[in-house]
Amino acid sequence: MTNTKPLILITNDDGITAPGIRALIEVMNELGDVCVVAPNSPQSGMGHAITINDTLYCDKVVIDKDAPQDEYSCSGTPADCVKLAVNEIIHRKPDLCVSGINHGSNSSINVIYSGTMSAAVEAGTQGIPSIGFSLLNYSLDANFEPVKKYVKTIAEKALIHGMPKGVILNVNFPDLLETQIKGIKVCRQADAHWVEKFDKRTNPLGREYYWLSGEFVNEDKGEDTDEWALQNGYVSVVPVQFDLTAHHAIKDINDWDI
Amino acid sequence: MTNTKPLILITNDDGITAPGIRALIEVMNELGDVCVVAPNSPQSGMGHAITINDTLYCDKVVIDKDAPQDEYSCSGTPADCVKLAVNEIIHRKPDLCVSGINHGSNSSINVIYSGTMSAAVEAGTQGIPSIGFSLLNYSLDANFEPVKKYVKTIAEKALIHGMPKGVILNVNFPDLLETQIKGIKVCRQADAHWVEKFDKRTNPLGREYYWLSGEFVNEDKGEDTDEWALQNGYVSVVPVQFDLTAHHAIKDINDWDI
Repeated sequence: MTNTKPLILITNDDGITAPGIRALIEVMNELGDVCVVAPNSPQSGMGHAITINDTLYCDKVVIDKDAPQDEYSCSGTPADCVKLAVNEIIHRKPDLCVSGINHGSNSSINVIYSGTMSAAVEAGTQGIPSIGFSLLNYSLDANFEPVKKYVKTIAEKALIHGMPKGVILNVNFPDLLETQIKGIKVCRQADAHWVEKFDKRTNPLGREYYWLSGEFVNEDKGEDTDEWALQNGYVSVVPVQFDLTAHHAIKDINDWDI
Repeated sequence: MTNTKPLILITNDDGITAPGIRALIEVMNELGDVCVVAPNSPQSGMGHAITINDTLYCDKVVIDKDAPQDEYSCSGTPADCVKLAVNEIIHRKPDLCVSGINHGSNSSINVIYSGTMSAAVEAGTQGIPSIGFSLLNYSLDANFEPVKKYVKTIAEKALIHGMPKGVILNVNFPDLLETQIKGIKVCRQADAHWVEKFDKRTNPLGREYYWLSGEFVNEDKGEDTDEWALQNGYVSVVPVQFDLTAHHAIKDINDWDI
């Protein structure tokens, strides 16, 4: 029997039991054979961390006994999961890697902190078509139903067309009802940033410590940005690259005459 | 008395006592007033991780009692150190942020895994001129003497010219004697990647685990790349950006007609 279904690798950064990845698995089972390799604990804000000074455990698990996919729970970061999956579990490049659905936004500058997107970027560096999905709702009770049809459409298109070389998709969904979502917009990353605020406290032993928090500030009013799309009811799709070279600045720095 | 010296923030990912940051502090003390806020333990491979589900400690320390700089040892990641420094320690944007000198390469695709560069990028997102420095020698005994004059020159130029908007410098040094280094080249990031290899072992309790390792593969032979510069005896300077949008791919994805 020939298996012509695509092989789809799924990971995330909220952990293998998070509702967001369960929704993503459900949709991907309609499109191909699914293998899940995801962190055994939440890894939000891990960026592109990899585990180089510690051991990695990766155990086969059954989370939904009626579902067809193989699942592996990994002690490492989202990027570790992708490396382990390709090299030690499925032993080949999957046809598609999808990461998410993240509980919370990875739009604009959030992409650089995102474990969800780092997993997708890691797959991209290995030449695997790859997409990160995120919903603008941090709650564990977030409703992923309205976005499932968009997840399916975008993944299907990626399977058909492949991905431009060196490009990964960063897809964010507004937290809206299905009838409120206006469609999909391909965007650029808004030029926004975080203004930090630290909550300074004293622990029971009298030692001071901090909690990191902050405020997201977007002064980029461009209607071609992901922030504009999301605020106006659209799904944002930003093509992201891992060639970080600021090619336009090479001349500027050469003019320093160093 | 008016203080007209620039304020320079220093961090790294190898930890506050690493020889690389001690060398960087020595050079920066020649250029301005120095404040060091660096991790209390090695953070290599941490990428742009930030600490959002745990507390952060940050303690004033004296490592070199004869040196003029203030130093703070932080329990967080390199990116946390920059956020804490700006908001809770120096209470303003420094004139320059330098990160490193990393023990090991952050050239080419390594930039996305690098805690050193993430600290520099974090500063860049806050509009602070910022540079990451790395030496192609992973050893704690690495010799930083030959590169000090280049560190000083590049930092001086950044203080004079500022940085193009949204740009950070990724500076890598070949592991050579001073007489062998041919000069500085402004480059693009080479299109290289890692081919993973996992070392699978069994722990004393009989449970399997992995060590991540891998081989760096560079098939990009361009003479305008950082890899070419480093292999040919030059210091590589890559202007790096945190707008990850693959602007050239927006049309391709729009052609998917989603």
